[in-house]
Amino acid sequence: MKILKLLLLSSITTCSLFATASLIEEAKKAGLKPIPSDKKELNKLIDPKGVITTKRVELGKRLYFDPRVSKSGLISCNWCHNLGLGGVDGVPKAIGHKWSPNPHYLNSPTVYNAVFFKRQFWNGRSATLEDQAQGPIQAGVEMAMDHKVLAKRINSIPAYVEEFKKAYGKDTKISLKTIANVIATFERTLVTPSRYDDFLNGDEKALSKKEKKGLKIFIEKGCVTCHNDIALGGSLKPFELNSKYKFRDVGDFVANNKLIKVPTLRNITETAPYFHNGQFWDLKKAIKEMGKVQVGYKVKGDKVDNSLSVKIMPISLTDNDVDNILAFFKSLKGRKPTIIYPQLPESSLTTPRPITDSK
Amino acid sequence: MKILKLLLLSSITTCSLFATASLIEEAKKAGLKPIPSDKKELNKLIDPKGVITTKRVELGKRLYFDPRVSKSGLISCNWCHNLGLGGVDGVPKAIGHKWSPNPHYLNSPTVYNAVFFKRQFWNGRSATLEDQAQGPIQAGVEMAMDHKVLAKRINSIPAYVEEFKKAYGKDTKISLKTIANVIATFERTLVTPSRYDDFLNGDEKALSKKEKKGLKIFIEKGCVTCHNDIALGGSLKPFELNSKYKFRDVGDFVANNKLIKVPTLRNITETAPYFHNGQFWDLKKAIKEMGKVQVGYKVKGDKVDNSLSVKIMPISLTDNDVDNILAFFKSLKGRKPTIIYPQLPESSLTTPRPITDSK
Repeated sequence: MKILKLLLLSSITTCSLFATASLIEEAKKAGLKPIPSDKKELNKLIDPKGVITTKRVELGKRLYFDPRVSKSGLISCNWCHNLGLGGVDGVPKAIGHKWSPNPHYLNSPTVYNAVFFKRQFWNGRSATLEDQAQGPIQAGVEMAMDHKVLAKRINSIPAYVEEFKKAYGKDTKISLKTIANVIATFERTLVTPSRYDDFLNGDEKALSKKEKKGLKIFIEKGCVTCHNDIALGGSLKPFELNSKYKFRDVGDFVANNKLIKVPTLRNITETAPYFHNGQFWDLKKAIKEMGKVQVGYKVKGDKVDNSLSVKIMPISLTDNDVDNILAFFKSLKGRKPTIIYPQLPESSLTTPRPITDSK
Repeated sequence: MKILKLLLLSSITTCSLFATASLIEEAKKAGLKPIPSDKKELNKLIDPKGVITTKRVELGKRLYFDPRVSKSGLISCNWCHNLGLGGVDGVPKAIGHKWSPNPHYLNSPTVYNAVFFKRQFWNGRSATLEDQAQGPIQAGVEMAMDHKVLAKRINSIPAYVEEFKKAYGKDTKISLKTIANVIATFERTLVTPSRYDDFLNGDEKALSKKEKKGLKIFIEKGCVTCHNDIALGGSLKPFELNSKYKFRDVGDFVANNKLIKVPTLRNITETAPYFHNGQFWDLKKAIKEMGKVQVGYKVKGDKVDNSLSVKIMPISLTDNDVDNILAFFKSLKGRKPTIIYPQLPESSLTTPRPITDSK
């Protein structure tokens, strides 16, 4: 009797192990990739050009949290991309200088794991974090900062000048470009491995049965067509604009051949509201809606110019499907890097003063 | 010859030690007090009612950094009282909800060492940090939060409910009052001992010769009449309103018998611009101006009702005096507590949504 039990148990275990192992295979075949657990391997991905050093990350962190990067002296990168709130601001459309709403009704995307995105900005107009970081600083509705004033401000703060020298050598120049570069270097470190990664990295017990079921449905229903690779998103894909979707302003996307950067699903439970215009607060509803309007088309590759002719074929997700997918999404909540809130260096008498443009 | 040298040296040393020791005595006699180096002694001062626990400080820190405490979901306590910028926002007048400037042109005071203030707010209308913290949350030009919505929002975030229970017991209620209380508990820990404290605590080498000279002038010229006690400020004193000062709006102060809370001088080099309306950016000029219009009156005590009849007698400070006082002020830059930027708990579907009131 004992032997029978043991045999039975062993056979069940083998079976379940086999199923799990094959789910890992299936996920990888479908284009899903974990954040590598191996530090060297991870480093190759987040720092292909070898720009990361401790000094630069520390300086970049300071500038990321420093509101003096903005015209008003009040808006830091962390204002829209709050590292305590999943890397977002939690409002439907971003609010910037003088309380300006984003004119395209765009929702702030998360900065966490953005290093894994193939494109930055909703319309994908930047290829790198370094390029991206120059945008919001200068945008009139975001930080509204003139690049000359920015350079003057940071150059007027002795401790920053010193830190730039220590991080980049004596002859370094402080400009919009080098400021954006070092902020981006800090952002490259903002990766959040989760239980999902542990699972794909071989820890078969890292996901519950329900979470695994969710992952399976996610793959089989075709969500993975767009939400793939390490970021479960981050590349440009076609977006249904003509039918039931009421975009109040789709300016950029129309101009961009109706392609949109697929948002990452990592830490998704922390980053409501959802979609590029923040119109959905309920993640379940967002999943269901995506099924209706987005899932199922056949991609012709990842390039901008040949993606317009794809056909979007709605599928339907049952409440049970959505439930399981949601369970899977919860496993994408990652372990955040520990961030010591920086002490920012003092301004000097030559520092260009903040201009709030208030009444 | 050697013996003579030694004798000479020893006599010089004794002399200088004696002078230093007497400066410490002089400072204490004049009403200056250090942040105690003894932890128990410090604890009695910052926590007379024994409210501080690790769990409460951690919860208070979260709420301090959580912008969801405001109507818009965008403005945290740290927006105006930035712990990376000396506990202030660095702009002349505070900017709040919908980019509203403070209607009385008031500058945000620092939160660092505010636990040592006898009064909170510029007009001193609060006696405690607990009471103070309720103000900005509700003020229409600051966080603009309705207290019922606030309670609903925090109660709708499961992890906050859990943390409140752990910090205050199972039956605790989450309300504006308890939220303000726990934020204030965190603020009680924001003390920044400096070299000046080390000096007053007996380390005679903690200040340079110039800094000591500055301290001596600071005492002798009478700055210490208002800038005294641990905070070098923090109590109500008369403020010259009639002559050369052009206050654009002194509403509160007039209503308050022309009494104003003396700002702390701790971390003063980090908290430009100066004065209640942020009209001075240059600390040297601010020191000189204070000499002209403020210093030298005789106090009749610290009470509100008997301070109106005092006479303000301008004195003049030479450039050399100002220089030495500035050197002394630099020694007031304190060691900030290490703050790990908090991961804030997720909102739920019942969380009242942020209302930005944007166009």
